[in-house]
Amino acid sequence: MTGNPEIASVERIEADYRIETAVDPEAAVDVMAGEQSSGTFLSVPGETAELKERSAARVEKLELIECDGQPSLPGSARGDGVVRRALVTLSWPLDNIGPSLPNLMATVAGNLFELKQFSGLRITDLRLPWAFADRYSGPKFGIEGTRRLSGVHDRPLIGTIIKPSIGLDVAATADLTRTLCDAGIDFIKDDELQSDGRVCPFDARAEAVLRHVNETAERTARKPMFALNVTGELDEMRRRHDRTLALGGTCIMVSLNAIGLVGLIELAKHSQLPIHAHRNGWGYLSRHPMLGWSYVAWQKIWRLAGADHMHVNGLDNKFCEENESVIRSAKTCLTPIFHEKPCVAMPVFSSGQSAKQAPATFAALNSPDLIYAAGGGIMGHPDGPAAGVASLRQAWQAAMEGTSLTDFAPGRPELAKALGTYSA
Amino acid sequence: MTGNPEIASVERIEADYRIETAVDPEAAVDVMAGEQSSGTFLSVPGETAELKERSAARVEKLELIECDGQPSLPGSARGDGVVRRALVTLSWPLDNIGPSLPNLMATVAGNLFELKQFSGLRITDLRLPWAFADRYSGPKFGIEGTRRLSGVHDRPLIGTIIKPSIGLDVAATADLTRTLCDAGIDFIKDDELQSDGRVCPFDARAEAVLRHVNETAERTARKPMFALNVTGELDEMRRRHDRTLALGGTCIMVSLNAIGLVGLIELAKHSQLPIHAHRNGWGYLSRHPMLGWSYVAWQKIWRLAGADHMHVNGLDNKFCEENESVIRSAKTCLTPIFHEKPCVAMPVFSSGQSAKQAPATFAALNSPDLIYAAGGGIMGHPDGPAAGVASLRQAWQAAMEGTSLTDFAPGRPELAKALGTYSA
Repeated sequence: MTGNPEIASVERIEADYRIETAVDPEAAVDVMAGEQSSGTFLSVPGETAELKERSAARVEKLELIECDGQPSLPGSARGDGVVRRALVTLSWPLDNIGPSLPNLMATVAGNLFELKQFSGLRITDLRLPWAFADRYSGPKFGIEGTRRLSGVHDRPLIGTIIKPSIGLDVAATADLTRTLCDAGIDFIKDDELQSDGRVCPFDARAEAVLRHVNETAERTARKPMFALNVTGELDEMRRRHDRTLALGGTCIMVSLNAIGLVGLIELAKHSQLPIHAHRNGWGYLSRHPMLGWSYVAWQKIWRLAGADHMHVNGLDNKFCEENESVIRSAKTCLTPIFHEKPCVAMPVFSSGQSAKQAPATFAALNSPDLIYAAGGGIMGHPDGPAAGVASLRQAWQAAMEGTSLTDFAPGRPELAKALGTYSA
Repeated sequence: MTGNPEIASVERIEADYRIETAVDPEAAVDVMAGEQSSGTFLSVPGETAELKERSAARVEKLELIECDGQPSLPGSARGDGVVRRALVTLSWPLDNIGPSLPNLMATVAGNLFELKQFSGLRITDLRLPWAFADRYSGPKFGIEGTRRLSGVHDRPLIGTIIKPSIGLDVAATADLTRTLCDAGIDFIKDDELQSDGRVCPFDARAEAVLRHVNETAERTARKPMFALNVTGELDEMRRRHDRTLALGGTCIMVSLNAIGLVGLIELAKHSQLPIHAHRNGWGYLSRHPMLGWSYVAWQKIWRLAGADHMHVNGLDNKFCEENESVIRSAKTCLTPIFHEKPCVAMPVFSSGQSAKQAPATFAALNSPDLIYAAGGGIMGHPDGPAAGVASLRQAWQAAMEGTSLTDFAPGRPELAKALGTYSA
């Protein structure tokens, strides 16, 4: 990736936006830059030329793009009635905030989404000065560390989510874990709804599932990675991390939107394990194409803060996201943030995944560096979880060898049955 | 408010949604309840009737409402092509997560926004079992504590934001603070863009501005409240809080969406000062009416976590929000969450505010329990900040006495000039 100008560190903080406005785009974007730096709605005495030179945001780019002419969001100024869209880049002096991720949020993604001038505004990318790389650890494990701990090389980690998401007691969760370990699973995660409820409390669950994980490691010399959901308050997360580590676990999981940026930063400072970052809630941040966050911009912040694995949904998923968007998200996790400090995170595919999506996933991503997690795709396999795991291994082997699944299925009953079962 | 069933604590966690779907609404809502509890997209062995009884989310209400027939968001299932909207209530057993605000987020506002079944989904309210009140402090100061510390009773606190938002150095910020203190201001806040940049570092700023605040308190026996923006990492926020407290300051400010829920919970545990909660970024959470969060639902979480002051925008603001929505937001901050533990927060009006909006604000809110913050409305007053403050005091006096501003203006040149200056 060396030489890619997109990942070179920059002198100023830069953010890209897709905007939509019915007023003069140049004027609208000036308001945006003003709102997010030294401007006020009415000029005030202190707003000198020197101050602006020192602290004002700059409009680096304003490029009109196609637009169907309809305002995307309500409440915007009508202007001349002509709705235009544009790609915009703003930049800020690093000195405005220093290399602080929380303050970066307020600067690049603060009040601007509510500005009357815009009937649409979405942050699409971010580029940061090197000082951010100096300050934040980024993923401590990433792909290399995840492969080392799980002992899986040169292919995706085949993973699953404990299902039902919530309601299994400790014994049932442990039994299922044993079944999955026996089936040769590489990766297991708690559902994001499962943290420390009464039916399946964290400590008892961790002890019970990691017993099977450790037994498997002794037997096979390869330890399945179990991402225990530690989401909670900071002291709880740290304590659960410590417990996981002490019990021989190799991964913790958190819900990013539930804990927030300071939660992840603090947990990452403390953590000696890979952090599996769940993005639940992502829909409210992103689902309208002219509002909120693109994954490209959003995931950079969490990777810098310390996320090792980032959820990206999956092809032909049960949600509303298009395949093209899923692949773009996965690719962005694998794209360095800085030349000298790539902060690459392992993308996690999930949601309605089965053997069927492996070939298209590999073809599009052109990398085996991912976690491929299936819930029903493993546990709903007609011959049980072990057959589900086998079907996924077979599907990925086929995909990476460039053989179609139907050609690969004969003599492999698990894959054959998966192909007949899953409609995805 | 006693006797209002809306604020009675409930046995189960309850969340209300506005949904839009082109498939059978009952089926769609069943998917929603399943996704957020014990359901899987393919039935798995462990999903027993007993488990569902214990842990499944329940659909408590499904009420069709009017709809223009157009899907609001892309990517949804087409179903029978008829787009319907409904009000929905789901409930969950408390035991699924226990009284944990971070895990509440993943449960009531997790994956569901991305479900293919919905072309619109917005969380509109939340009701929580008492266990949440037991666990979380709520605002430690709220209205009563803010009035005690600021010495302002029976009327709004007249406030302002240091402007330009960013770029003033410490000396200029301190000079402006002295001017505002001399003018009799009740409340001053840093802009959310101003935290610990090189031009105006936190420690030096805190010391400089609080010197004037303290001098004012000695002189007038009333200490203006200065909300210093401590937004940053947890150790920074705690240290800045301690510094503020040691210097005699009476308020700290944070950007909620920048620090996240764990950030606020931890800061609130530590804090001995009112927490002024800035909602910048709110636009990306809320601006599409069929996506994301209503303020009614969202602010409950932050109040429980410890926010004392909550931003609500202002009437005739420079943003896209309608006045009706602003007032609904302010009223909800003043509505108890629990009978026995109201957790009431002080609403903060801001954005393009001047003397002009005082009467309508008071008429709609029917309460003087608010902070009324004007930036340009004070510092852009033609006769300077002191006249700006005076004009706001006069406007609120008129509003609360039921006199029109034009009737009140003669003999009050500050108000008269404000009426001629601000177009809001």
